[in-house]
This record gives sequence, C-alpha cells and structure tokens, in this order.
Amino acid sequence: MNATDIKRVLIGKPFPTSREIHERLDKTRALAVFASDPISSNAYATEAIMGVLIVLGSGALAMTLPLAMGVAALVLMVIFSYIQTILHYPDGGGAYTVAKDNLGMYPSLLAAGALLTDYILTVSVSVSAGVRALTSAVPEAFDYRIAIAVFAIALITWINLRGVRESGTVFAIPTYAFVAGVMLVIVIGLVRYTGLFGLEPLQEHHEVVEAERSVVGFAYIWLLLRAFAGGCTALTGIEAISNGVQAFKPPESKNAAKTMVAMGIIAMSLFVGITFLSTHMKLVPSHEDSILSQMTRGVTGGGFLYYWVQLFTALILFLAANTGYQDFPRLSSFLANDGFLPRWMKNRGDRLVFSSGIVVLALISSLIVVVFQADEIAMLPLYALGVMLSFTLSQAGMRRLMGEVGKLKPGETKFTGVTTIHFENGWRWKRWVNTVGSIVTGIVFVILITTKFIEGAWIVALAIPLLVWMFRSIHNHYKNVAEALTTERMAEEDLVDVANVAVVPIADIHRGTLRALQYAKRISSDVRAVAIATTPQMRQRIEERWARFPNLTTGVTLKIVDYDYRDILTPLVDYIEHVNQKEFPDKLITIVIPEFIPENMAARLLHNQTATILRARLRSTNDVIVIDVPYHIE
Amino acid sequence: MNATDIKRVLIGKPFPTSREIHERLDKTRALAVFASDPISSNAYATEAIMGVLIVLGSGALAMTLPLAMGVAALVLMVIFSYIQTILHYPDGGGAYTVAKDNLGMYPSLLAAGALLTDYILTVSVSVSAGVRALTSAVPEAFDYRIAIAVFAIALITWINLRGVRESGTVFAIPTYAFVAGVMLVIVIGLVRYTGLFGLEPLQEHHEVVEAERSVVGFAYIWLLLRAFAGGCTALTGIEAISNGVQAFKPPESKNAAKTMVAMGIIAMSLFVGITFLSTHMKLVPSHEDSILSQMTRGVTGGGFLYYWVQLFTALILFLAANTGYQDFPRLSSFLANDGFLPRWMKNRGDRLVFSSGIVVLALISSLIVVVFQADEIAMLPLYALGVMLSFTLSQAGMRRLMGEVGKLKPGETKFTGVTTIHFENGWRWKRWVNTVGSIVTGIVFVILITTKFIEGAWIVALAIPLLVWMFRSIHNHYKNVAEALTTERMAEEDLVDVANVAVVPIADIHRGTLRALQYAKRISSDVRAVAIATTPQMRQRIEERWARFPNLTTGVTLKIVDYDYRDILTPLVDYIEHVNQKEFPDKLITIVIPEFIPENMAARLLHNQTATILRARLRSTNDVIVIDVPYHIE
Repeated sequence: MNATDIKRVLIGKPFPTSREIHERLDKTRALAVFASDPISSNAYATEAIMGVLIVLGSGALAMTLPLAMGVAALVLMVIFSYIQTILHYPDGGGAYTVAKDNLGMYPSLLAAGALLTDYILTVSVSVSAGVRALTSAVPEAFDYRIAIAVFAIALITWINLRGVRESGTVFAIPTYAFVAGVMLVIVIGLVRYTGLFGLEPLQEHHEVVEAERSVVGFAYIWLLLRAFAGGCTALTGIEAISNGVQAFKPPESKNAAKTMVAMGIIAMSLFVGITFLSTHMKLVPSHEDSILSQMTRGVTGGGFLYYWVQLFTALILFLAANTGYQDFPRLSSFLANDGFLPRWMKNRGDRLVFSSGIVVLALISSLIVVVFQADEIAMLPLYALGVMLSFTLSQAGMRRLMGEVGKLKPGETKFTGVTTIHFENGWRWKRWVNTVGSIVTGIVFVILITTKFIEGAWIVALAIPLLVWMFRSIHNHYKNVAEALTTERMAEEDLVDVANVAVVPIADIHRGTLRALQYAKRISSDVRAVAIATTPQMRQRIEERWARFPNLTTGVTLKIVDYDYRDILTPLVDYIEHVNQKEFPDKLITIVIPEFIPENMAARLLHNQTATILRARLRSTNDVIVIDVPYHIE
Repeated sequence: MNATDIKRVLIGKPFPTSREIHERLDKTRALAVFASDPISSNAYATEAIMGVLIVLGSGALAMTLPLAMGVAALVLMVIFSYIQTILHYPDGGGAYTVAKDNLGMYPSLLAAGALLTDYILTVSVSVSAGVRALTSAVPEAFDYRIAIAVFAIALITWINLRGVRESGTVFAIPTYAFVAGVMLVIVIGLVRYTGLFGLEPLQEHHEVVEAERSVVGFAYIWLLLRAFAGGCTALTGIEAISNGVQAFKPPESKNAAKTMVAMGIIAMSLFVGITFLSTHMKLVPSHEDSILSQMTRGVTGGGFLYYWVQLFTALILFLAANTGYQDFPRLSSFLANDGFLPRWMKNRGDRLVFSSGIVVLALISSLIVVVFQADEIAMLPLYALGVMLSFTLSQAGMRRLMGEVGKLKPGETKFTGVTTIHFENGWRWKRWVNTVGSIVTGIVFVILITTKFIEGAWIVALAIPLLVWMFRSIHNHYKNVAEALTTERMAEEDLVDVANVAVVPIADIHRGTLRALQYAKRISSDVRAVAIATTPQMRQRIEERWARFPNLTTGVTLKIVDYDYRDILTPLVDYIEHVNQKEFPDKLITIVIPEFIPENMAARLLHNQTATILRARLRSTNDVIVIDVPYHIE
C-alpha cells in the first residue's frame, strides 16, 4: 500500500474538474450556513465582558448589560453598512476585494492579513469553546480538552479535505436547534424573573467575588473599554455573507441583505438576552463552567434542556470553526492567484477543494489551540482585532466607491475592475453611513489593540504586518520569475547556445557507463569520459577495460584525474566548472551521468549516492544540462 | 556556514591518501596498546563471578577464587593456542580471516558476526564500567551515569573521527599506571594479610548476606557454571594482538607472541590477586560501589592510592572502549570489501579513518548503554559470548591449517590464499593444542549460552544469525548488481538502441521551455512537446504562444491533452509510458524536462515541485533517459 493508496482511502477518489457546481441556498438555509459563526459567538461574548469586570468584584458585573447593548448597537451599524457592500459587490465583496478595488494594494494586503489571522482564530476559538461546552456538561473530560480540541480540528479537516459541500440542511439542524434552545432558556428565564405563571423565581448565584482592586477615573474607563473590547468578539463572522452573495438564490443581493439583517437581529437578541439573565442571576465567570452553561443550568435546573443547549452549543461552534475552513482556503486561493501567496495554494486538490489551504489552516489553528491550552477566553484578545481592521478597511473602501457613484451622471455606468456601478440617489447619505462605520470600527480597533495589547493583541499586531511583508516578498519573487521567463520582446535568437561537448563522469567501465557513453556519442562529437582515480590500481583497471570496447570508445577522450583524497566529487565538479567557465563560457554544456537504479529502497542504502549528490551540486551551477542515463538492476 | 564548513571545524581538513602510514610499536608500547582491553576486564570480571554466587549468601563467595583460577587457566590455554595463529598469519589473523581461509564462507561470517557484536559490547561495557569507576569514587555523579557514558562515547567517537593515530605513548600511561596501581594495592593487601612488617591486618567486610535459596546437586553445579561463565568476560580482548601483528617491529610474529604471553601473565596475575583479596575481605557486590573500588578502599584506607586506582581504572576502560573503535571499523571494512556489508563502509573518510564504521559503532553502542542504563554487569551476559564463538571458530580453523601443514613435505611451501605455510616439525602436537583449544572454548561457549540465555545471551544468540543472514543478503545483492553490470561476454552491439524521440513536457511557453525545446531539437528529429490542459483557457494560451516562435516550433509536434482533473502528472506519465512501451518497445526514449531553479531554498517553496516529482516517478520506469534543462532565475 503506497502513499497514493492511503490517500485514496482517506480522501476518496478524485473528482473531475467539470463536477464543480455552485449550490444555491434559500434564505432559511443560507441563514444557517452563514450565521453559525456570529450566532455561536454568544457562547463566549458575554463571558468576555464579565471576565474583565470581575477584577472589580461581583458588583461591577452589573456593567455587563450596558456594554453588551453597546456592542449590539455596533453590530447593527456594521450590518447596515455591509448591506451597501452586498448590493455593490454581487459577486462577493470580502474586505480584500473591496479594499483592492478602491484603496489599492497595501490596504488590500492589510485587510487580507487581518482576515487570514481572523479565520485561523475562528477555528481555534470556536473549537476550544465547543470543547468547553462539552466539558462544562461533562467535567471529567476537562483534563483531556486539548486532545479533544485537536481531534475535533483533525475531524473537521478530514471532512473538508474529502470535500463535503456546504450542505444547507446539515447546517440548519444545529444552528436552529441552538437558537431555539437558547431562546427557550431565555424565555423561561424571563418568565421566572418576572414571576409570572407562578414559576419559581430565579435564584441568585451565591458566590461573591471580592474586588481585586478598586479603580476610579481614567482607570475605570480603561477597564470599561477593555470589557467592551472583549464583547466585540460578538462581531466576528458577520462579514461572511458579503463573501458569499453568489450562494443565494436570485435576486442574490437582496436575499443576502435580508438574511444579514435577520442574522443580526437573532444574534443580538441572544446576546442581550444571555447578558441580561447572567447579570441578573449574578453569575461569576469560571474556568471550568461557561457562563452560558451556568445560566442554562440555573434556569432549567440542569435537565434535558440543559444538555440540549450544551450539545448544540458544541455543534454550532464546530460549524463556526467549519466556516473558517471555507473562508481561509478561498481567500488564500484569491491571494495566490494574485501572486501574494505560494502558487500551490491556488490549485484545487483531488476533491476540488483548496487542499493546501485547508492543511495550512489546520496546522496553524492546532498550534494555537495547543499553545493556549484550548482556553478560548485567553485567545479572545487576539480575535476581534483582525475582523475590526477588515471592517474599517472595507468600509473605507465603500466610502470611496460611493464617492465614485456620486461622480456619475444618472444613467451612466462604470466598471471599476471588479464591479459595475451606476448613479444612485442618496449616495451622499450612503457614503455617510460607510464613513461613520469606518470611523467607529476604526476607533474600536484602536481600543482593542491598546486595551488588549499585553494580553495577546501584540501577537496579531505583529503577525499582520509580517503577513503583509510576506505577501510583498512573494509577489516580488513571482514578478522576478515572470520577468526572467517572459517571452515578450524575445527574439528566437536570444536563446543560449549549446556547446558541442558532453562530459561523462565514470567510476568504472560497466554496462551502465557504456550505455551513458553510447548516448553521449549520439548527441555530441566531443565526448569526454572523466574518471577520478584515487589509487594507481583504479587507473590501471579503467585503462584496461576502456581498451576492450574500441568501437564505443573511439573518438571519446578518456581523462583520468589522479586524486590523493577520497572525496571524488570535488575534482569532478572542478573539472566540469572548468569546461563550463573556461572552455565554453556563455554556452550550455552537457553532463551525462550514468546511474544504476537498484531494485528497491533497501538496496539503495547499499550504494553510494554519488550520482544523486553530483546532480544536486550541479543544480546550483549555471548553464549545465544534466542527462540521467539510468540502468535498472533486475 | 554550510554543512561542509561545520564538518571542517569538527573533523579537521582532509588528509591526502598518501599520508597513510603504519606505526611500528616496540613491545612495551604494543603491550599498552593491545592489553588495555583484557587488562581492563579486571574492573568487572571478579564481580561477575561474585554476582552469581551471592544468591547463595556471603559464604558461597569463597568459591570465587577457584573459579577465577579456572578462568585464568582457560586464558593461558587460549593464549598458547593463539600464538600459533600469530606465527602463521603474520599479516593479521583475526577469527574472520582464519575461518575464511580454512573453514569456508559460513563459518567466517559466523565469526565476523560474533566479533562485530563483541566489539560493540566492548565499547558499551568498557565505557559503562569506566563511568562506574568514577561514580564509585564520586557517588554524587551516580544519577548522571547514562549521560556521562553517552558523552564519553561521543568524545571517543569524535577523537576517532579526527583520526588521531594509535599512539603507543598515550596508551602506555594509563595502562601501566593502572597495572602499577593495582599491583601495589595487591602487594599491600597481601602484606597486610600475612601480617608481615607489622602492618595492621586487613579488616573483613562486616555485611553478611543471607542466602536467597539453598541449592544442592545439579542446581549447585549449574550455579557454579553460571559464575564461571561470568568470569569468562576476562577473556575478552585477548585476540586483539592476532589482528595487529603488522603493528610490531620486526621480527613481527615473534615480538607479538612474546607480548601476548606477557599480557596474559599480567592480566591473570591481577585477576587472581584481586579475586584472592576480595574473597578474603569477604566483600559483597554492590550496585553503586564496584568490588575493585571496595577492595582498594579497604586495603589503602581510601587515600591517594585509592583515587589513583579509580582514575586509571576509568581511563584504561575508556582506552579499552577505544580498541572497539579500532577493531569494529577495520573488520567492517574487510567485510565491506568482500561484499558482505554496504560498500560505503569500505571507504576511508576525510581523515583516513573508516568514518562510517565509527559512526555505526557509536550509534549502536550508545543505544545499548541507554537500554541497559549504563549498568555493565547487566550487559556482561551478552558480552563473552561473541568472543568465545570466535575463539572456537578461529582455533578450529587453525586445526585445519595444521593438518595442511602436516600434508606438506619438508621444504615444500603452499599459499592458502591468505598466508604461506611450509612443513613444520611437531605439527601433530600443535594441531592437538588447537583442537583442545577449540573444544574447550566451544564447551565454554555452550555453557555461556545456556547459563546466561535468559539474562540476555538470547539477544546475541539472535543477533549473530541475523547478522550472518544480512551479510548473505548484501552479498547476493552485490553479486546481482555485478552480473547485471558486467561487461564480460558482452559484445559492443549488446547495448540497447536509443529511439530518435524526445518528449518535452511543458506547462507554459516561457524562456525555460523554449530552451528545453531548443535542446531537444538538437538531439532528436522527432520532438514532441506535451502539455496537459486542465482548462480551455490554458489550451488556448499555449496554442497562441506556440505560434509566436515559428523557427523553434517548426518540426516539433505540439500535443495538448485535455484533462478534467488537476493532477497533471498522471496523464503525462501515461503518455510517456505509451511512447516507451507501445511506440518504441525495447528502446531507450528521451524526456527533456525544462526546470527553472529559483535563487534560494525559500523561493523553492513557492513553486510546484512538478519537475522533481516527475523525475522521481520516471526513475522507476525502465528505459527512460531524463534530461534536465535548467533555467536559473537571477
């Protein structure tokens, strides 16, 4: 069973290129596919706010609700602004595309770097949070959380490498089950809160945490800003619809816009509802038991509904991780196509998915899970940063685009290079929306990076510029290669001459070397057999055997170099370089290497790899053409 | 700093082959060089006997002395028998050589396998015992003994890779210092024992060990045999002189024989002396404190002389390990030269030493040290086995040789293939010595393997036949290769025809592919450019660019294969195999691969390794000549 067979078993047989199809989703299914990421943020967003406030003691947790409402307002504003993007980029308007189309290369690379880090973190954070939903319900599994998380990533990777298409129905079940479950918990919680229907009122959490410190003035505001920054993780994933407008049934843009609004309303209702109940119940963040788990247990008493919510929390989080597997490889392939990432990330694999992007994503996100020990709360300071930067850039791009729209006369159209625009009424107002969106998310980005810098945001603040630098370097490399290889302005005479010389390194005279000599004589009239003799016996032996094949050796120069060391490669390469640089400068010379190929790998260990090493050393020598004349044993 | 530079710093610059010289040793220095291994056995041989007897309690240790004297008698007999070998094989008569010359291939391979395992264990056992001599004196270091032992092996390996010659003087210091130190301790001990000169009588060890079991009859004899087998480790290394007769000043054989006798007398005096005093002092073996250390401390009171003995015990043991570094690579190179080990073990490295044999020895002996946790007493059951088998075979060979000597007429000489023999008086008597030697060591071998089987001898009993099987397989492989490559009975017309066809796989038309096409046209009039088009755009692009170079493409067939998968190698290899097997069966065909070489390793990661992978796949295809036409970027 060789490597190819193993691949077949794991991944399945290859799909033909023509099989590639685009599934169209109705709004119900589309909501499930695209909303799993933002809706699943509810598993940790409230907790991210509380985790900051708790240093002031249990009392300060009351500030969670106002902050959550601030986040919700931000979300609705971003959604409003993104609807513009959806309507103007019906073929998909990710931040990279919009920035490239309107702001130029560097802003687009900045957006790309931000999004790539965001997609990687989507996987790490969502999988870790999903595992925590499970270990909250089954505390015995807590010690194995890293292994479970890595296994979950491996499973999601495997499914994606097999190329199972985004199936709306499969996504719909956990998403709607999660929404329904949490909604039900919130409703029961509110009913118990109000004391209607004679239900037992909610119990307040008994644990009281003392303040670690008391702060006033600027320090207090700083803490509130940090808590707000934590809540901004609720914004991750809301840009996904703008990438996938083409997945909607016609009219694509309108359906996508409507779905985005519905998504925002659902996600924010859950967020505010969860936050309201948790703060009312005076819940305290705990490493082992998530806030959502504590709240659900408090409201339901820990029965069937509790396990339902925990199970579908885990599932929707794994689905959210899966969206990273859609977005990262797709954006990588765009970037590779534009020459900013290695070209092999552009190509689809056997199953028509971007396999290399999937594998790169799996490796990096697993590494993050291991480094952060599957603690998603510790990863959150890294998380919202990338998405906020891409919001800022994408909306700044939209602002520029609306300005272009305003310059057009009614009835006139213009192609920007990506999309077609025409005059619109109210363009000033729309531009104002994008301007405000860009400024607000820009301010939030600054808040995020300053308040979370020491906690880990510095990693992303370092990673994004490094990525941009890498994109540039790769781009320059490909540009150089293209220039070196281009046939533009090239006359056919430009090609380098081939010298009429063939050097045949030989260690002995046997059928393999004779075959190589025979071939060399066919292609050149100046054939030179070169042997390095490390002992007088070796010289004598070669001379004797040489004389036995007059037909073949006539007209061939035999050059035996006596050498007082055992490393025969050095004098061989020296001779070849002499021929190349002194005898035939500016021409291609030919080296014919006789190589006998043993019957199997074990047998290869029994032979000097002289031919292989020689070929590797000649690779770096310019203007040398290497001919392998193999001689198979058995 | 590349790999070659690092090698230069570590190993030093290469020596020319002509620098190889053979140092001649006088008897004093020769004794030091060759005797370090057998003399150093005194560090553990007594203990190996006691370690078995102790299960019967302290009282049974009294049997140590008679057993040690039995071992001493065996040693003297073996030495007596080996003198025959030295006199008849003046060029060096190791067991492998003698068995090959007299008994045939399989006995010689058996001897070779036995010796190789013995040499490996010489390193593991001697280094571990040397470290124990140090940790007996400095108990704090006991916990680090494995690391110290591995470091010592690394150091010895490094010294040997640099190729420091066996310097008689360097060897002489620790060997004679050890002998003098231990002799002095024995003399003081005997004086104190006899009570002469008014010295304080020796104190008896106070610790009394109860019998774990009491045995009678056969079980008792079995235990005595096991104890005797343990003592046989004192025999290891006494064959070394027979390998190195050429290192002596003339008359080589006579000097070697005299040295061997001196070595035997010194080694056995120490052995019997140490054993006598240890049993008289009622010492008990201990894991942390060796018997030699206990005895020396008891006799000297632990002062300067104690540390002197411990230090030179460690040093002589490291020298003994060093003899493994002389013997193993030399025997490996003999075997490689005869085609029983990989050919690269035959060659001397940059510093004229058999570098690959040294590295192989270092790796295996380190592994054993780690597995046995640097406990040489635990390794001893594996140790003497190989040496005893090689004694048996070598003396059986000598018996056969003496028979040949007896068949000659006085004055007649005969060349056996290795050595020249002539009639000798007393050949019957000499043959009888070898016969007895062979039988006795054969019996001891059977005792060793049966009594120590469960304790570890099974490993060697398994390893030696496996080695013989490996030697045979390697030999068969080289025989097959030689037969496939031989030019004997070969007419010049036997060479396979080269088909007048050149296939050029192309992915695009650029300077690299044009250069390859140009080269292909030079060497063939039937050039076929093959492109695999995975999209219609790709086909169109290639056709358009093709038309731009009429001079170059005229007369070249362009074959574009439409392919609905992304893996372009499969249809390419399919086409090449079709040309090879259908169009030109029984002929060599030529594939010209255009390959552009990026400027550095990092840049290589940015390109598909299609050319490399294609070349690797074509390697297994018979009758395909591969031409690499490189195009260097920058």
